[in-house]
Amino acid sequence: MRYSQTIGKTLKEAPKDETSKNAQLLTRAGYISKEMAGVYVFLPLGLKTLNKIVEIIREEIVAVGGQELQMTALQNPDSWKKSGRWGDDVVDIWFKTKLKNDTEIGLGTTHEEPLAALMSRQINSYKDLPSYPFQIQTKFRNEVRAKNGLLRTREFLMKDLYSFNKDEEELDVFYGKVTEAYFKIFSRAGIGEQTYLTFASGGTFSKYSHEFQTVCESGEDTIYIDRKKKIGINKEVLTGEVLADLGVNKEDLEEVRAIEVGNIFKQKTRFSEPLGLFFTDEEGKRKPVIMGAYGIGPARLMATVVELFGDDKGIVWPESISPAKLHLVGLNLEDEGTAEIAETVYKTLMQNKLEVLFDDREDATAGTKFSDADLIGIPYRAVVSRKNGTKIELKKRTEEKSELLTLEELLQKIS
Amino acid sequence: MRYSQTIGKTLKEAPKDETSKNAQLLTRAGYISKEMAGVYVFLPLGLKTLNKIVEIIREEIVAVGGQELQMTALQNPDSWKKSGRWGDDVVDIWFKTKLKNDTEIGLGTTHEEPLAALMSRQINSYKDLPSYPFQIQTKFRNEVRAKNGLLRTREFLMKDLYSFNKDEEELDVFYGKVTEAYFKIFSRAGIGEQTYLTFASGGTFSKYSHEFQTVCESGEDTIYIDRKKKIGINKEVLTGEVLADLGVNKEDLEEVRAIEVGNIFKQKTRFSEPLGLFFTDEEGKRKPVIMGAYGIGPARLMATVVELFGDDKGIVWPESISPAKLHLVGLNLEDEGTAEIAETVYKTLMQNKLEVLFDDREDATAGTKFSDADLIGIPYRAVVSRKNGTKIELKKRTEEKSELLTLEELLQKIS
Repeated sequence: MRYSQTIGKTLKEAPKDETSKNAQLLTRAGYISKEMAGVYVFLPLGLKTLNKIVEIIREEIVAVGGQELQMTALQNPDSWKKSGRWGDDVVDIWFKTKLKNDTEIGLGTTHEEPLAALMSRQINSYKDLPSYPFQIQTKFRNEVRAKNGLLRTREFLMKDLYSFNKDEEELDVFYGKVTEAYFKIFSRAGIGEQTYLTFASGGTFSKYSHEFQTVCESGEDTIYIDRKKKIGINKEVLTGEVLADLGVNKEDLEEVRAIEVGNIFKQKTRFSEPLGLFFTDEEGKRKPVIMGAYGIGPARLMATVVELFGDDKGIVWPESISPAKLHLVGLNLEDEGTAEIAETVYKTLMQNKLEVLFDDREDATAGTKFSDADLIGIPYRAVVSRKNGTKIELKKRTEEKSELLTLEELLQKIS
Repeated sequence: MRYSQTIGKTLKEAPKDETSKNAQLLTRAGYISKEMAGVYVFLPLGLKTLNKIVEIIREEIVAVGGQELQMTALQNPDSWKKSGRWGDDVVDIWFKTKLKNDTEIGLGTTHEEPLAALMSRQINSYKDLPSYPFQIQTKFRNEVRAKNGLLRTREFLMKDLYSFNKDEEELDVFYGKVTEAYFKIFSRAGIGEQTYLTFASGGTFSKYSHEFQTVCESGEDTIYIDRKKKIGINKEVLTGEVLADLGVNKEDLEEVRAIEVGNIFKQKTRFSEPLGLFFTDEEGKRKPVIMGAYGIGPARLMATVVELFGDDKGIVWPESISPAKLHLVGLNLEDEGTAEIAETVYKTLMQNKLEVLFDDREDATAGTKFSDADLIGIPYRAVVSRKNGTKIELKKRTEEKSELLTLEELLQKIS
C-alpha cells in the first residue's frame, strides 16, 4: 500500500464534535470518516483492521462448531410480534420503514426472532440438534444519543452466534466452550489481559448472563473486579448471595470503569416457544429448543484497543489487528538513489508477502512522516533515508531505540 | 461439511410464491430462505457460493487498482439534497426512516453522493488523483414488486467501484480496464461466453453507458446481439447512427432475452460538481473531478448462473463458485465397514484441503441422496457404498458415466 495513493489522509486536529479518544485518533489517522452521528465509513486502513478482527472471531467461532450464514437487515414484523418485541414501547431502538404498499418493516437490531423462525423450518427431531449458526452482519439501533465514537453507534457490524440445544446441560457445555473461545478472541486481539468475565443479571430465564468487560478508564460501565481471581461483577448483581456463589470476598473487589466487548446469554425457551421452535426427542415428545446468544461487535473491539493502548502520539495496534505489519518511511525521496533503495525495500517486502504501508510522499517532511507513523500506529517503523544508505532503521512503535539493519536482516527480524 | 449437520434442508417442492427458477432451485436446495418478498437469508451453502463470487470480484477489482472501503447504509440527506436525488419523486426506491429526534434519513440505494462528499475531503490536488475506491456492501431499494428471486431484491450485496480522474481521457482508459476486468469476472464465474457488452443510453453526460448482459431465456431485458462481433445493443439506442458507430449491420442482429449482470457509467461531473469535489490541476486551476461508477451484484450473478445452467434435476455450479468441489455420498452407512471407509475418504479429502459436502445421513435412501446431490449441483459426486468396497464411484454433475477409483486416484483426479 502506497500512502500517497491511500484514501484516508491524516488530520492535525480531530473534528470538534468527536470527544472520544477512539473517534479522535481513528479519524485523525484516516481509519474512519463520519457519515452522521453514530454512523461511520471505514476507510481502507480501517477496513483492514476491522477485517482482521472479524477473521479472528470467525476462526474461533468456526472452531467451536459455528456455521456461518447471513440474515437480513430488513425485518418482517411477524416473528417480532410473536415474541412481543415489535412495539417501540418494548424495544425503543427500532428503525422502522415502509414498503411501497405501506407495510411497516424494521431494521434488524438483533436476530433471535427471524432466526428462531427460520430454524423452526430446519429443526424437527433431536437428530437436527445441536446447531450453532452465526453471522457477521450489520445491526441497526436507533440510539437516542450515539456517542463515544465506535463504542456506541447506530449502524455496526456484529458477530452474533446462536445456540440451539436439546437441553440445558448441552447448552451449559456449549456456553462454556464459547466463553473459552471469547477469551481466545480477546487474547488474539491483544486485550485478553484486561478483559474480565463479568457476572450480570440473567433476566427472567437464567441466574446470570455474562459480559466480557475490558478494564479501561474511558469505559461506559462500572464493574467490580477481583484481579486475582479474574472475575468481574456488575453492580446490579453485587449481592452477598452472588459473592458467595462466586467465592469472592467483598474486600478483594475493586471498582473500575470498563467497556463491554462481548456478551453471552442463556435465552432458553424465551424465543423458541413463541416462535414455534420445537423438536421431537428420542422418546417422541415435543419440546422447545433451548437457545443461547453470543455477541461481539468487531468495531467496538477495535475502538477498545484504541482507547486502551493509544498514547499521546496516536494509536498503538497489537500486531494481530494492525492494518499492516510495517510502516516503511521513505525520506529524501527527491534523491534518486535513496528513492531507488526505498522502492527496492518496498518491493522485496511485498514479494515476501509482508503487509507494508509505504510512505512514499515526496512533499511531506520527515517530521510529518514520523508523526503520521506514530498516529497510524503500525507496530514496526522502518526508515530508508540518504543518511542510512542501503541500511534500514527499524523501530517499534512502543520503543524509543532503533537499529540499523540490512534488508536481509530486516526480513529475518519481522517475518 | 457434514450434510446431517448443515443448516439448509432440501425441499421436495418449492414454496408456491416462488415462480422464478433461481428462487425455486436455490430454496429447494437449501441455499436461501425468504424473510419477506425480495429479502433473502443466505444459508451456509448459499453464503459459500456468494462469498466465492465476491472473492473473484474483489481480486479483479483490486487488480485494476481498486481500494476497498465500506460506506454506510444509513444516509444523511445532506449530500443527496445537493445532487437533487433526495426526493421520492426523483428516486422512487428510497427506504426512509427517522432518528429519535425526528430527522429523516435514508437507506443507501447507491453511494455516489456520500462518496463524492467524502472524497472532497480527500482530494485537493492533481497529486491525489486518480483514485478508485470500491466496496462490497448492502444496498436497499424499495422496489414496488420484488420478483424473480435473487434477480430483483429489496436488500442485496453490491460491488460498487467508483473512479475519480483528472480528465476524460484518464477516465476512458480506466473505463476500458474495468470493462476487461468485468469480462474476467464473468468468465471466472462461468458466464463469460453468454455475456455481451451491451450499449445503452448514457443519459445526459455520455453518449453510451454499458451493460453486461447475459443471454438467458428468463431474462427481464430484451437486447439485440451480434453473436460474431460479441456486441449487444439496448432497444433504447437501436438507431442507424448507433449501428454505424459500432460497425454492426441490422441484419446480423438477433433479438434475445438477457439478464443485466453488471453496468458501468461515465458520470463525469454529474456528482462532483454539486458535491463540491474539485481539484487543483498542474497549472493551479480548480476543476471538477471526473467520475465513473461500476456495479456488479454478486447475488444477481449467482441467480444468473442458476437460471442459465440449472436443469430439470437442479442446480449446476461452475467449479469456481460451487459451495464445495465434491459431494461425497455415503451409502449403507449402517454397515460399520462402509461407514468407516466413508469417514476415511472424508477425512483424507479434508486433510488435502478439498472442500467436501459429505452426505453422512443414516436415515436417507440412496435415491434421496442422489437426487439431493443433483439438486445441490456440486460439480463432482463421489459415492462410497457397500457394493463399491474401498473404491469410490466418481461422476460429474453434468455427465452420466461414472468411474470407480481408489482414494489415491480420486485425490489425483480432483486436486
